[in-house]
Amino acid sequence: MGIAIISPGRDVTVWVENIKKIDQKIRIQVYPDISDDNNVEAVILWQHPKGILDRFPNLKLVCSMGAGVDHILSDKSIPHNLPITRIVDSKLTFSMTNYVIMGVLNLHRQIDRYKSDKNRRVWDMSNPELPISVGVMGVGELGGDVIEKLQFMGISVAGLGNTIKENSGYPYFDRSRTDEFLKSINVLVCMLPLTPETEGILNIDFFRRCKKGTYLINVARGKHLVEMDLLKALDEGFISGALLDVFQQEPLPEDHPFWEREEITITPHIASVTNPEAAAPQIVENYHRMLNNQPLVNKIDRNKGY
Amino acid sequence: MGIAIISPGRDVTVWVENIKKIDQKIRIQVYPDISDDNNVEAVILWQHPKGILDRFPNLKLVCSMGAGVDHILSDKSIPHNLPITRIVDSKLTFSMTNYVIMGVLNLHRQIDRYKSDKNRRVWDMSNPELPISVGVMGVGELGGDVIEKLQFMGISVAGLGNTIKENSGYPYFDRSRTDEFLKSINVLVCMLPLTPETEGILNIDFFRRCKKGTYLINVARGKHLVEMDLLKALDEGFISGALLDVFQQEPLPEDHPFWEREEITITPHIASVTNPEAAAPQIVENYHRMLNNQPLVNKIDRNKGY
Repeated sequence: MGIAIISPGRDVTVWVENIKKIDQKIRIQVYPDISDDNNVEAVILWQHPKGILDRFPNLKLVCSMGAGVDHILSDKSIPHNLPITRIVDSKLTFSMTNYVIMGVLNLHRQIDRYKSDKNRRVWDMSNPELPISVGVMGVGELGGDVIEKLQFMGISVAGLGNTIKENSGYPYFDRSRTDEFLKSINVLVCMLPLTPETEGILNIDFFRRCKKGTYLINVARGKHLVEMDLLKALDEGFISGALLDVFQQEPLPEDHPFWEREEITITPHIASVTNPEAAAPQIVENYHRMLNNQPLVNKIDRNKGY
Repeated sequence: MGIAIISPGRDVTVWVENIKKIDQKIRIQVYPDISDDNNVEAVILWQHPKGILDRFPNLKLVCSMGAGVDHILSDKSIPHNLPITRIVDSKLTFSMTNYVIMGVLNLHRQIDRYKSDKNRRVWDMSNPELPISVGVMGVGELGGDVIEKLQFMGISVAGLGNTIKENSGYPYFDRSRTDEFLKSINVLVCMLPLTPETEGILNIDFFRRCKKGTYLINVARGKHLVEMDLLKALDEGFISGALLDVFQQEPLPEDHPFWEREEITITPHIASVTNPEAAAPQIVENYHRMLNNQPLVNKIDRNKGY
């Protein structure tokens, strides 16, 4: 019995190698070259063709290749009793946190202003620091790490989450206190999982509840953001600028208005990339646990959606 | 008796206010309007006219307005027995560390590449992270804090210092192991005090001992860097780029070649600015200690030069 990797358009050689390195007995088939459907007991997915899992009568485990599972849950054909796991990878957290801190510091220390000053040979020492107070939406593995690192650096930071939390060690707001959260910050970092509840959460109504001049960082999913509403919020002054790593459509279409806006910094979905060397052992571990009827690691809650 | 503030060309109103707030009985005279030389028991200096201290027969204490004292020690007319103090300010450390981390992360996550890609509407996900290993020259209050913060973030960092140190908690190299230090890093951060020994330390011979492609961050003093040697090192490939906050002459002259070099990012000596609110209490404290013959706080060692 074995595993199928289904990740159209991506070279998964390094995934195959890393899995084989741990357990060379596992048979691995790579989509679209899957000849033996009956052999597939587990699948590793990234942007799979919807409905494809119906082919595998012996399927018992669905693994995401990344930290997110929204690409899996959006396929309504997947039976509800199939367990789904995701990757929790310290390297992935490391990259994501560094990216966010870079965005926060570039705003705080106004690197764009100094780059523009340099081009005009201007030496202007006035007001070298923009006061910042960072708010992180989503306080799980990734958001929690950003909060911890910013706190250690002495930067003001608060978190917004789903549930009521005590003793968080940082200013924490549950959803019912969203307005209070937004009024206390001027840098908004979206690190939410994508679920039907959070899709489109960054919309014009939400932006109008922010303090004027709030800066947006989105490292979660493109679908969290109603993209045309960001342009509106920039024009209205509620949002002063944005650092965006994710988009509704990727690659970002060539005629997309974001390319033209100076206030928007764009990166091509590279804030954090799953590292197969760290991810493969987690998948093999879960494969063996599944075979032995043991509890899975990093299994998601399908009702919560993450 | 009282204090004189000598900082030509700078508006020191906020310094006067902050000192008065703590001890309104101290008489403060501000250069050039010093009418009563005999009254001056302490001076607060920033870029003072050399030789001016000879005017004050009752002078017993010299305070720097900042973390550095090189601007004071370069005045050879100051009697050797006069104690000199500097400012140690957590806000100053906070700013300096944030600036350095910003520089490190912008290199690591290649923000300049993505800004240029954006201008050309290019979506290129390949190799999103440049491997980095940071080396900090000077491991005092400021350098030590940068090392601590980078370590907490999980970024590889080493320190180079004057003395032999054990149990530093991070890879530490004393001066005799400079080559080993340089071969172990590819981001070189200069945070040294400026002394006759460190002046011009960043020269072409030093750069040629670095690994090819090393990135330079200088937040110490302009005089640490032989500026024309940096251009040579860029041309030879030993240095790949630089983030510079300090220069031999400030403001950087309009015809200086640094303005034109794309690999050099320039900021106008704003990495860290002394905060009078934090500094004034230290100066008043030392003023009272001097009056009461008590040991001074943050007194420098004139033989070491810092």
